[in-house]
Amino acid sequence: MDLLADAAARDRTDPLAFARDLFVPSATPLVAYLDGNSLGRPLKATRQRLTAVVDGAWGTRLIRSWDEQWMELPFALGDDLGAACLGAAPGQTAIGDSTTVLLYKLLRAAVAHAGPARPEIVLDSENFPTDRYVAEGIAAETGAKLVWLHPDPALGVTAANVASALGPRTGVVLLSQVAYKSGYLADLPAITRVAHDAGALVLWDLCHSAGSVPVALDAAGVDLAVGCSYKYLNGGPGAPAFCYVAARLQPVLSQPIQGWMGNSDVFAMGPSYAPASGMRRFISGTPPVLAMTGIQDTVALIDSVGIEAVREKSTALGEFVISYVDSTLSQYGVQVASPRNPAERGGHVTLSHPDARSLVSALWERDVIPDFREPDGIRVGAAPLSSSYTEVAQGLLSLESLLRSTR
Amino acid sequence: MDLLADAAARDRTDPLAFARDLFVPSATPLVAYLDGNSLGRPLKATRQRLTAVVDGAWGTRLIRSWDEQWMELPFALGDDLGAACLGAAPGQTAIGDSTTVLLYKLLRAAVAHAGPARPEIVLDSENFPTDRYVAEGIAAETGAKLVWLHPDPALGVTAANVASALGPRTGVVLLSQVAYKSGYLADLPAITRVAHDAGALVLWDLCHSAGSVPVALDAAGVDLAVGCSYKYLNGGPGAPAFCYVAARLQPVLSQPIQGWMGNSDVFAMGPSYAPASGMRRFISGTPPVLAMTGIQDTVALIDSVGIEAVREKSTALGEFVISYVDSTLSQYGVQVASPRNPAERGGHVTLSHPDARSLVSALWERDVIPDFREPDGIRVGAAPLSSSYTEVAQGLLSLESLLRSTR
Repeated sequence: MDLLADAAARDRTDPLAFARDLFVPSATPLVAYLDGNSLGRPLKATRQRLTAVVDGAWGTRLIRSWDEQWMELPFALGDDLGAACLGAAPGQTAIGDSTTVLLYKLLRAAVAHAGPARPEIVLDSENFPTDRYVAEGIAAETGAKLVWLHPDPALGVTAANVASALGPRTGVVLLSQVAYKSGYLADLPAITRVAHDAGALVLWDLCHSAGSVPVALDAAGVDLAVGCSYKYLNGGPGAPAFCYVAARLQPVLSQPIQGWMGNSDVFAMGPSYAPASGMRRFISGTPPVLAMTGIQDTVALIDSVGIEAVREKSTALGEFVISYVDSTLSQYGVQVASPRNPAERGGHVTLSHPDARSLVSALWERDVIPDFREPDGIRVGAAPLSSSYTEVAQGLLSLESLLRSTR
Repeated sequence: MDLLADAAARDRTDPLAFARDLFVPSATPLVAYLDGNSLGRPLKATRQRLTAVVDGAWGTRLIRSWDEQWMELPFALGDDLGAACLGAAPGQTAIGDSTTVLLYKLLRAAVAHAGPARPEIVLDSENFPTDRYVAEGIAAETGAKLVWLHPDPALGVTAANVASALGPRTGVVLLSQVAYKSGYLADLPAITRVAHDAGALVLWDLCHSAGSVPVALDAAGVDLAVGCSYKYLNGGPGAPAFCYVAARLQPVLSQPIQGWMGNSDVFAMGPSYAPASGMRRFISGTPPVLAMTGIQDTVALIDSVGIEAVREKSTALGEFVISYVDSTLSQYGVQVASPRNPAERGGHVTLSHPDARSLVSALWERDVIPDFREPDGIRVGAAPLSSSYTEVAQGLLSLESLLRSTR
């Protein structure tokens, strides 16, 4: 069976195939969008909801909407996200700021909580730049010490790696659940356990897992987490991030950016800041209401189909890509740079090729859109809700045709 | 001439009357929206632009839009805002984060630049809570010392007030140009001058002035400024804030939230953070693209009519309100709590009345929407681009009718 026939057969039996039609179609020809792990596509419902918000909650109810819904929106939507995607009971998730700002706030809070006897932050060299840069800045300003792990770049951080770096001076372990380059899916429960055994807090970055991989924050006893909403959650470019703080830690953590919206009585506007109880204390400025619109629709969609079904298709799409590399693309020098074990792989598959940069440029010219990542990575990020097997197959065939013509 | 006839006559000769039709009309009866200084109304162009972004830059160009326009959007839109409203030459204004987060970043940068020999931050008790709370938090973490001014609450901070608090240990002066309660318009050039004469930096909060009062940041030699975009700039609920850093200071200031988007080479994703040159170093996370959409249209509108024309109507609306208080509402115990001199007053007029809280509740039930501010303030914030004199008159008549019926 050729690739397209195989893909068509899979699409016919895909229980999530219906979801593709819920997304806004591209207005110009798009052969294959393989970057859903970087910027998710908009849902049609989001386009409608944005107009409805402009006409209604914003344009008609105006300032009254703060009392009517917006003051609680960061927490209500956080709860919905927590239930649908994060395994988080209500009252522990909030939306706002960017991932960078939330990382800063929670890592500062965690370092302060760990105290001077536990000044070490364990993190890894393969983590996303923002995570590393934020930690670097916090170390410089607080005197915390960075303890670097250097995992296999084709894989990621294991519990054994982390255990080797832990000690009585470890305060916080900061890791990504899914590695942005390799797609490695870390063993979140096991790593959380070894960190806790050493008396450290864990702060998980879920940017590449939220909405793609089932996360069980409460079950694993995770302390803190952040993540973005513009990848698999389709919140739109620069949509606000989310943060999770375990209920048991909320009363004892405080974050450094003290704004009016995190105050115990927002509209008393009194002389001094006193942090609100619950998740409100982790927000700072006015919640980005309009920018939260897109997240709502994807969270509702994932809630309706179940994150396990999303993960199942995501895994199958990954296997589909890897299988074609093995059968065909490998003869052109393409290699699988992601873990082959689906249980160790998140939502994207990274391929490597010496000419990755120019190949990605040429693919873009052919309306096939993967992502290039230094030094030689072609990231294939099929989004299980918006991608069909046929679309992925067309992308793979374009790559094959390009490789054949340039050999 | 009765109030409505007077208002109608003014509307007929108002050169900005045309702009009212550019805004999305309320879908249900709205007698008077008097809270444009808290949440500006949406422009019809913004509704269209949001849909166009969803269909086009987001839904069709997808990840390619980062290269094509979004990476530079925070700075391009910042430049447009700077030119239309702030008196800022290009390369000094950027959009992103919330006002609270930007205040934190710039105040931290300023305190660090001032150094340990100048640990004092001069600020005032009438400033907006976020400004005070952020400064309080920064003082606690850096050892900076807060030097409080206590201006007349019916007015605001003068150059003489500030001069009295300045000394060789002053590092930063943090003030709002327009006081959120009284509406007092501070003398930004004179205060900037006395601060500079004492060797201090100034950080201006422009939340209540941007888009309403002409600001001349470059001409006054201002060092730093922040402001929000959801008031007179109609960016929408929780739209991102802006920051201004004078070109001369950009190379010597660094802010604490080190994210990938502020790095010198964003996509190199190298091992260490090195701040970008120019305004990029003041941003942290992924720019909130979708949330910037609304700002663009109002900035374009203000640019086309001129901020001086906006200010002229704003002042006239204020005089219109005050005149009716003096002629009629004063007999019911309503007083003008804002400066009477229009040169000392920003875009809103605050009235005081012992029953302000219940009056505002009752007005809201009658679809007249001003704002209540502790302890006895009724804020009347007519937005010069979206408000007519007739609308304001109807609001005033509703208040009068309420006062008469409850006397």
